[in-house]
Amino acid sequence: MIEERHWREECGVVGVAGVSGAAELTSMALHALQHRGQESAGITVSDGHLIHTHKAMGLVTKVFKEDVLKTMPGSYAIGHVRYSTSGSSNLINAQPIQVANHRGAVSLAHNGNLVNAPELRRAMEQDGSIFSTTSDSEVILHLMARSKAELAEDALLEVLPEVRGAYSLVVITGSKVIAARDPLGFRPLCLGRFKDRYVVASESCAFDIIGARYLRDVEPGELVVLGDGELVSRRVAPPERERRCVFEHVYFSRPDSHVFGTSVERVRRRSGEILGDEAPVEADLVTAVPDSSNTAALGFARATGLPFEMALIRNHYIGRTFISPAQQVRDMSVRIKFNPVREVVAGKRIVMVDDSIVRGTTMRKLVKLMRQAGAAEVHLRIASPPVTNPCYYGIDTPVRKELIASSHEVEEIAAYLRVESLHYLSLEGLLQATGEAERYCTACFSGQYPVPFETDMDKAVFDRHARGAELILKPRSGDESARES
Amino acid sequence: MIEERHWREECGVVGVAGVSGAAELTSMALHALQHRGQESAGITVSDGHLIHTHKAMGLVTKVFKEDVLKTMPGSYAIGHVRYSTSGSSNLINAQPIQVANHRGAVSLAHNGNLVNAPELRRAMEQDGSIFSTTSDSEVILHLMARSKAELAEDALLEVLPEVRGAYSLVVITGSKVIAARDPLGFRPLCLGRFKDRYVVASESCAFDIIGARYLRDVEPGELVVLGDGELVSRRVAPPERERRCVFEHVYFSRPDSHVFGTSVERVRRRSGEILGDEAPVEADLVTAVPDSSNTAALGFARATGLPFEMALIRNHYIGRTFISPAQQVRDMSVRIKFNPVREVVAGKRIVMVDDSIVRGTTMRKLVKLMRQAGAAEVHLRIASPPVTNPCYYGIDTPVRKELIASSHEVEEIAAYLRVESLHYLSLEGLLQATGEAERYCTACFSGQYPVPFETDMDKAVFDRHARGAELILKPRSGDESARES
Amino acid sequence: MIEERHWREECGVVGVAGVSGAAELTSMALHALQHRGQESAGITVSDGHLIHTHKAMGLVTKVFKEDVLKTMPGSYAIGHVRYSTSGSSNLINAQPIQVANHRGAVSLAHNGNLVNAPELRRAMEQDGSIFSTTSDSEVILHLMARSKAELAEDALLEVLPEVRGAYSLVVITGSKVIAARDPLGFRPLCLGRFKDRYVVASESCAFDIIGARYLRDVEPGELVVLGDGELVSRRVAPPERERRCVFEHVYFSRPDSHVFGTSVERVRRRSGEILGDEAPVEADLVTAVPDSSNTAALGFARATGLPFEMALIRNHYIGRTFISPAQQVRDMSVRIKFNPVREVVAGKRIVMVDDSIVRGTTMRKLVKLMRQAGAAEVHLRIASPPVTNPCYYGIDTPVRKELIASSHEVEEIAAYLRVESLHYLSLEGLLQATGEAERYCTACFSGQYPVPFETDMDKAVFDRHARGAELILKPRSGDESARES
Amino acid sequence: MIEERHWREECGVVGVAGVSGAAELTSMALHALQHRGQESAGITVSDGHLIHTHKAMGLVTKVFKEDVLKTMPGSYAIGHVRYSTSGSSNLINAQPIQVANHRGAVSLAHNGNLVNAPELRRAMEQDGSIFSTTSDSEVILHLMARSKAELAEDALLEVLPEVRGAYSLVVITGSKVIAARDPLGFRPLCLGRFKDRYVVASESCAFDIIGARYLRDVEPGELVVLGDGELVSRRVAPPERERRCVFEHVYFSRPDSHVFGTSVERVRRRSGEILGDEAPVEADLVTAVPDSSNTAALGFARATGLPFEMALIRNHYIGRTFISPAQQVRDMSVRIKFNPVREVVAGKRIVMVDDSIVRGTTMRKLVKLMRQAGAAEVHLRIASPPVTNPCYYGIDTPVRKELIASSHEVEEIAAYLRVESLHYLSLEGLLQATGEAERYCTACFSGQYPVPFETDMDKAVFDRHARGAELILKPRSGDESARES
Repeated sequence: MIEERHWREECGVVGVAGVSGAAELTSMALHALQHRGQESAGITVSDGHLIHTHKAMGLVTKVFKEDVLKTMPGSYAIGHVRYSTSGSSNLINAQPIQVANHRGAVSLAHNGNLVNAPELRRAMEQDGSIFSTTSDSEVILHLMARSKAELAEDALLEVLPEVRGAYSLVVITGSKVIAARDPLGFRPLCLGRFKDRYVVASESCAFDIIGARYLRDVEPGELVVLGDGELVSRRVAPPERERRCVFEHVYFSRPDSHVFGTSVERVRRRSGEILGDEAPVEADLVTAVPDSSNTAALGFARATGLPFEMALIRNHYIGRTFISPAQQVRDMSVRIKFNPVREVVAGKRIVMVDDSIVRGTTMRKLVKLMRQAGAAEVHLRIASPPVTNPCYYGIDTPVRKELIASSHEVEEIAAYLRVESLHYLSLEGLLQATGEAERYCTACFSGQYPVPFETDMDKAVFDRHARGAELILKPRSGDESARES
Repeated sequence: MIEERHWREECGVVGVAGVSGAAELTSMALHALQHRGQESAGITVSDGHLIHTHKAMGLVTKVFKEDVLKTMPGSYAIGHVRYSTSGSSNLINAQPIQVANHRGAVSLAHNGNLVNAPELRRAMEQDGSIFSTTSDSEVILHLMARSKAELAEDALLEVLPEVRGAYSLVVITGSKVIAARDPLGFRPLCLGRFKDRYVVASESCAFDIIGARYLRDVEPGELVVLGDGELVSRRVAPPERERRCVFEHVYFSRPDSHVFGTSVERVRRRSGEILGDEAPVEADLVTAVPDSSNTAALGFARATGLPFEMALIRNHYIGRTFISPAQQVRDMSVRIKFNPVREVVAGKRIVMVDDSIVRGTTMRKLVKLMRQAGAAEVHLRIASPPVTNPCYYGIDTPVRKELIASSHEVEEIAAYLRVESLHYLSLEGLLQATGEAERYCTACFSGQYPVPFETDMDKAVFDRHARGAELILKPRSGDESARES
Repeated sequence: MIEERHWREECGVVGVAGVSGAAELTSMALHALQHRGQESAGITVSDGHLIHTHKAMGLVTKVFKEDVLKTMPGSYAIGHVRYSTSGSSNLINAQPIQVANHRGAVSLAHNGNLVNAPELRRAMEQDGSIFSTTSDSEVILHLMARSKAELAEDALLEVLPEVRGAYSLVVITGSKVIAARDPLGFRPLCLGRFKDRYVVASESCAFDIIGARYLRDVEPGELVVLGDGELVSRRVAPPERERRCVFEHVYFSRPDSHVFGTSVERVRRRSGEILGDEAPVEADLVTAVPDSSNTAALGFARATGLPFEMALIRNHYIGRTFISPAQQVRDMSVRIKFNPVREVVAGKRIVMVDDSIVRGTTMRKLVKLMRQAGAAEVHLRIASPPVTNPCYYGIDTPVRKELIASSHEVEEIAAYLRVESLHYLSLEGLLQATGEAERYCTACFSGQYPVPFETDMDKAVFDRHARGAELILKPRSGDESARES
Repeated sequence: MIEERHWREECGVVGVAGVSGAAELTSMALHALQHRGQESAGITVSDGHLIHTHKAMGLVTKVFKEDVLKTMPGSYAIGHVRYSTSGSSNLINAQPIQVANHRGAVSLAHNGNLVNAPELRRAMEQDGSIFSTTSDSEVILHLMARSKAELAEDALLEVLPEVRGAYSLVVITGSKVIAARDPLGFRPLCLGRFKDRYVVASESCAFDIIGARYLRDVEPGELVVLGDGELVSRRVAPPERERRCVFEHVYFSRPDSHVFGTSVERVRRRSGEILGDEAPVEADLVTAVPDSSNTAALGFARATGLPFEMALIRNHYIGRTFISPAQQVRDMSVRIKFNPVREVVAGKRIVMVDDSIVRGTTMRKLVKLMRQAGAAEVHLRIASPPVTNPCYYGIDTPVRKELIASSHEVEEIAAYLRVESLHYLSLEGLLQATGEAERYCTACFSGQYPVPFETDMDKAVFDRHARGAELILKPRSGDESARES
C-alpha cells in the first residue's frame, strides 16, 4: 500500500537458542524482518551468566554495527524491531525490555497487543507496582514477577491465561529462550532449525537469511522452551479456533515468508486472481503499486489475461526525509517515492492493483500522477475488502474516522480518487484465498472483534498508554476521554 | 545486476537556475538520482552575492536535512551525488568543488572522466599549480582559472576543447548555472523546465520528482548558460558522431527516465525481447534479478511467451551493513539482499534474467540459493553482451582480470555459475534495441575505446589519481606501475 | 586530589518549583554542579499536566542544548548529574528515574546510597516486583508506589523511615517538587530563593549561577514540598545528631559553595592552616595540586608564613581522552593533566599540599615530574587524615585494599612516593576546621560507620547492584562473593 | 582575561620527525597547546611513502580518538589547532592543508598571518591560480608549487622572502618535517629533542607532555629541516631586530612554557610586580581573574605586600554552551564561568588583577558580581597597557571601535566598569618585564606596526579572506569596503 505510515505492523521478533554468536545471527534475522518495524531495534543476549540488552532508534544495520555486536557475546539471544509511536528520540518503549525479578534477570520482546493491559496495569498500580514504560508488554513482566513459580516458563504458563489479546513473544533468561503465542494465534511465530539448534521468528524469511530451516509454526496457545538443542513444548491454553490476522497475508508479511503455516505468496497471488474474477475490466495492462502489491497484481493479470507491466518506479532510498517538503512541489508526498513510467503508461487504460486503501489521500495523488503521465483510464483494484475498523491486536491504525471506507461508499471513494472504476476484493474472496476461511480474524473489515475490549474507555486508555511517549501525571477521569470520540 | 559494488556509475548531477529555494529543489532532484551515487552528496547554492557549498558522506536525505537546507538560501544551485572510492570518511573528492579564481568564486560538479586529466595535471603541476583533490574534475577548474576570459562561460568554451573524455558538468557562479556535455556525449544530461525557469539533470526522473518538464538533452558538444529564465546555447565543438554510454540503458539509468533522448524503459524492454528471440528456452517461468533487470525480464517473457514471475525478493533496507559477516552463515553476501520465493521456484524450470555479469561470484551464490529453494533448472539470460573491458569514461569498474568474461568463454562461465544454460544478448541485439546503433560507445563489450588513452601509464596514473584517497608523496617512476599489470 | 577517578561523588541534584523555563534554569544549575558528576545528565520537567524526562551520557552543556531545552516547557523541574559506573553507553542508571504508579507519573533524582537497598530490593522481588535499573534509588520509587497515601509527599514520609543510609533527593510530580534529606544528613541539600519561588540544589553555587539566593539547608530528616511560591516543611524523622560527610569539605564541594550551613572555603582554608600548625616544614614555597587543594594550600602558606606559588599548571581540556596512551611516553597519566612550572620549581624546596591521597600511584608520578623540573626537595602535606576505609554513603571509592593508607604506615607511603616528608592532617584537626566536630561522619578515616550494613554480604550485593551495568541472571549464592574478599 | 572570545591566538603548531607513532605524539602535543585554538584540530602523517591528513571541528581529544590514530601510522607528522572564524561546521580552513604539486604531496600548518597575502593571492589568481580555502596559508603552498626547486626546503627558502608578516610554520613531505619562522619572529616556535629525534612546537609545554626536552627556539628567519635524527639549519633571511608578540607573555602562552627563549612565568610575574610598584592601592587582598592572570596577580601581591586570595571560582566544564541564555538570568555570560567566593570577598577591599581588557562588557558584569558578593571596594589592575589597536599578525581581535581603550580614557573606563580605581601597566613597565624591551612588537598598544599593510584596503581584503567561511562571488570594488570603516 502506498500509505505505509497509516497502517503498519508494530513489531517483529526473533529468538536464537544455543548458537555461539547468537546476537549476530539475531541481528541478521532482524534485518530480514525490518519491514515489520523500522524505527527501533534491540537485542538481549545471554552468555548463561550475564545478560545484556542493547537497543536504539534506527535500522538494524545502523543499531547493530560490528563494534556493538563485538560487545555482545553469548549463545542465547532475542531481538525486536518496532515502530516508535511518535517523536524521534522515543526510546522508552523500544524492546526487548530487560528487568530483574526474584528469579534474576529476564528480558522480553513482544509482537501484538494485550487488550486488557490497561485494566491489569491499573490493578497492579493500585497494588503498588511501578511502570517504567508505556508498553503493554511490561504488564507481562510484572505478572511473571508476581508468580511464585521457580522457573520462568512455569511463571509464563501461570500468567499468560490472565492476559487477553494478541501476543507472539520471546523471553530470554539464563540459558534458554522461551517463545509463546496467544491461543487465538493473531500474530505469526515460526519455529526453525539452525544446524542442530532451534530458532524462532515472526516470519520464515528470517530463517532463510541465516540459512536456517522452517519447521513449523509455534502453535496458538503453545509455549516452547528452547535450550541447547532441546525443545520442550507446553500449552498455555487448550486448542481453540484460531483468529490469525488476515492482514499479514494482505500486506505485512513478505511474500517469500511462510506465516500461519502457509505461503504468503500463494495467498496473496490467489487474492489477486479472485479479484480478477470478481472485478474484471477492459484495459490495456495491469500494474502494481510496488512492492507490496506485486504478487496480487500478477495474480490479477493471470486471471484476467491482461499483460502485467511495471508502470511505477519506487525510490527505495528513503531515510527520514523531507519532513516539511518544498512548498513549490505539488504532491510531494507521493512523488518522493513513486514515479510513473511514461513510456508504459501513456495512452493506456491501466488497471492499478493495490493491497488496501487506508485514508486514500496519497492514492488520490498517485492517480493524478498517472494521468499526468498520460494514462487514458485508471481502474483501481484493491486486493482486500474496505478497511472500516481500527485494529487492536498489534497494528498501528488510524482512528476510525480517518479510514475512508468507514464513512464512504465505494462509489464515493472512486469519485474522490478520480478513478474510472474501483473494486475491492470481497471478504469471502479474501478468506477463500487463505484456504482456511474460518481461521482468520477479519475485524478491520468486518468489525467483529474476536477479543473484545472491556469498555470503550479501555480502548482509549490503552491507546494513551501504548502511544504516549510521555506519561500523564494524574490519571484523572478527564484524561480518560477516548481518542476517537 | 546483483554485484552493484563492481560496476557502477560514479555520479549524478543537477542544476537549478532562477528558482527560489533552489537548494531544496536540488536536494529532491538528487534524491531521484540517488541510484547514481550513494556515498556522498553535495550542493552549492548562490544567492547572487554569496556562494556556499555543503557536502558530506551519506545519502541525500541524511546530508540535506531541513536544518542544513535552511542555511542555504538562494535561487541558483548545482548538486552532485557520487561514490567515494574507498574509506568511510573520504570526503576529499566529494563534489561540487568550490574554489576562488580571478573571476571570484565558482563551483563545479562533474559526471564522467577525463582521459587526459593525468597529463594535464602533470603539466600544470610542472607549471606551478597545486591540487587539493585527486579528482580529474579539478583539472577543469584550473584550466578555467588560467583563461583570461572575463566570463566563466567563455572560459569554459575556451578550455573544454583541451580536455578529452567524458563530461556532463554543471558550473555555478553568480546568478547563472552553466551546463556542458562533451562532444561525444558519453554521459547523459537532460534539460528541463520548472515553471518558467530551466533545470538540468543527469536523468529526467529528477525532473519528475519536482514536477519539472523534460525539454530535450543538452546536446553533445553543447554548453548552455541558464539565467533567470533565459537560456543561451553555445557550442564547445562542432557536431560529430555521438558515443553515448550504452550501459546507461543496460543498467545505470532508471527505467522511468529519458536519457539520450530515448526512454530507458523502451530500450531495456526491447533488449529483453531481442534476447528472448536470440536465446529462447523451454522453461516454466521467467524471473528477474530485481530491480534493475525487471524491465528486460518482462521483455524476455513477452517475446518467449513464458509467464513472468517474481521469484526473488530483494531487501531494500541496506545501510552500511554487515562488513564482516557471521562466519556461520554461508553465502551471506547474497542472502543479505536476496531471497527466493520457494512457492514460486520449487520444482520449476526457471529463466533468470539479469542485465549483466561482472565478476560472477555473487551470481554463483544466487544460483545456489535458487536450487536450495527447489528450482529444477536455472537458465540464465543476460540482457547485454559479455563485459570484457574496463570503462574509462565515468564508470567505476574492476580491473580487466576480475571481469569473468575477459578470460572465460560463455560455456566456462555457465559451468562456473552452475546453470543449465547461459546466453548473453549479442552486441548487435543490444544496439538494435537502442534504435540508434551507431551512436553508442561499446568499449566495455568490444574494447573499441572512442577516446584513447595516451599511454598505458596514463591509465594507471589516472586510476591512482582518481581512486587514491591519500596522495602519493613522490611520483617516482616506481609508482607508475599499472594497476592492472 | 590528583586521582579523581578513584574517589568521587556520585551525584548532584537540583529542583526548581514554579518558575517558567524551569528546565533551562535546572540545566544551568546542573552545570554549576558538574564537578559532582560528569558522565550523565538528566532533567524531568512538568508543565502541570505532562511530565517528560530527557537524560543522556555526557556533560550538561552537551546533553541539554538549546534544541532539547526547547522541547521541555514547564515550571517544575528536577535534575541530576552523575558518574556512570562503567561502559560508555551505560544509560540505564542515569537519573532522574521516571515511572508511573497509582498516583500517576513521578520522577526521582537521588544523591547518596541506601545501605539496606539490597535487602529491601530482595524482599520486594520476592513479593513480585520487577526492577528496571540497578540503582538503589529505584527502591524508593517502589516503596512509594506501595504506599496507599494519596499524595506523593505523604507516601514519601511513610516510606523514607524504611530506608537506611544517605539520601538527598528530589521528586517531581504534578505541580510540585519535593525534597528530602536523610535524618543523619550525610549529603548536602540547600534551599534557595529564585525571585519569589523556591529552588533546591546540592550546593549553593548552583544558586549563584542563576542568581538565586541561599536561604538555608534542607535539614536532616526534613521533607519540603515546594509549590508555586509555597513551601511546606515536614519531618521524616525526629532530629538526631547529624553525620555530615566531611569529605564534602575536604574535596567534593566547590569552595564558593555553602554546604551544611557552612562556607566550604572557610573549612578548607582552616584545614590548611591547622595542617600548617601541625606539620610545618622549612621550605621555599607552598604550592597546591590544582584546583581542589588551592584553598588548603593558601591556608597552609598563611599559617607557616611560606610564600604561596602556582608551581603546577593543570590542563582543563580533558574529554574522554587517550585511553591507551602512547607507549613511548612515561608517566602519561599525570602528564596529560599536570605540568610543573620549571621557573618556579627549579632549585626550590617545595611544600606540595593536596587534599587527600587515595591510591598514591599518580602522586608518585607527580613527585617525579617535580624532581625532573628541578625541585630540590618535595614535602607533601595532606589536608585530611589517611583514607583507610571505603565509603558506603554515596561516594564511589576503591576497595579497601587499593587504599594505600589502609595497609601502609605514613613512613612507608612517604618512601613509596619518594618525598622528603609526608604529613597528614589529624582527624582532630580536620574536625576542628569544620567548627562542629561532632556533627560529621568520619567513616573513611576512622572506620566508624554511623549506619551499619546488615551483613558483609550486603555490601557485596550492594556493590554488584550499584555498579553492574548488566544484570546478573541468577542471584545464586556463588555470585554473592564480596568484591573486596 | 575574562573575554576570551574577543582576543585570541589563532593557532598552535607541532612537528615530530623520525619517531614511530608520530601522529599519536603529535596529538598529545596538540592537547598541550589546546589553549591556542579550540575549534578544530588536524594532523598530517607520513610513513615515507603515503601522506594522510585528518582534521575536524572540535577538541584534540575528540578529533583524535584511538580509532582514528590507529589509521595514521608513520614516523613524521605535523599538527595544528585553531579557532574557526564563525559557524559550527566551518571546516574549510582547518589545517594542515595538504595538496599535491610537481614535487608530490605536501602539507602545511601555519601560525601567524601574512599581511601581503591578499595582494599575492590577487596576483596569482590573475595568473590563473585557484584557491580552495580562504586562508592566507594557502598562498605559501602556491608559491612553493611555482618554485622550480627540486626540494621542498629549497622552494620554501626561495619563496618565504616574498611573504611579509608573521609565520611560524611546519611543512611535511616525504621523510622530513620543515619548520620556519619569519625574520621578525612574531610568533613563537620551539625546537625540542625527543630521545634522539627532533620535535617542534609553538610552546615548550608541548614538549613536557611527551617527555621531550626544550633545546632552543627556531630563530627568527631560520628554517630547519628535521630528518631521521638530523637537523639542517638554513636562513630565510639575515638576522634583524626581532618583533616578538608581547601578548604571548601577557596572555596567550601557558606560564609553564618557554617562548622566545624566556619563561612566560617569569615575565608575567614580573609584569605583576611592576604593576604593583606603579599602581599600589590600600586594600585587603589581591585576587586574579583565573586562570590567565594568576601569575601576574601573585606578582602584584608580592610587590605590594597584600595577601593573595582566590576570590573567584572558574567553571572549566564549558562546551559549546548556552548560546541563547535564559532570559531570567542576569549577567549570564559571566555567571556561567565565574563565581565569587563570598567568604573571601564579603566586606573586603579587593584588588582584582586581570591581564588585559578588550571590550570591557564582561568585566563590568564581573565587577557587579563582586559587589553582590559583598566587596567593599573593587580596584582593578591590568597587567598590560590599554589595547588600542587591532593585531594583524595572527591574533583574532575585534575591530578598533570595539576596543574600549581605543576611544575612552582610563577614567572613563573606570567609570564604565564601576570600579573604585583602575590602572594599567605602562608600556615601559611591560617591556621592562620582558627583559628585552626592544625585541617586542607592541602594535596593539602603540599602533606602531612593524610590517605595514600596503593599503587600508588590503586590511579589509585580508579580513574578508581570512574570516569568510563563504567565498565572495565577484571581487568587485564594491566588496572592498573596509570592515572597520
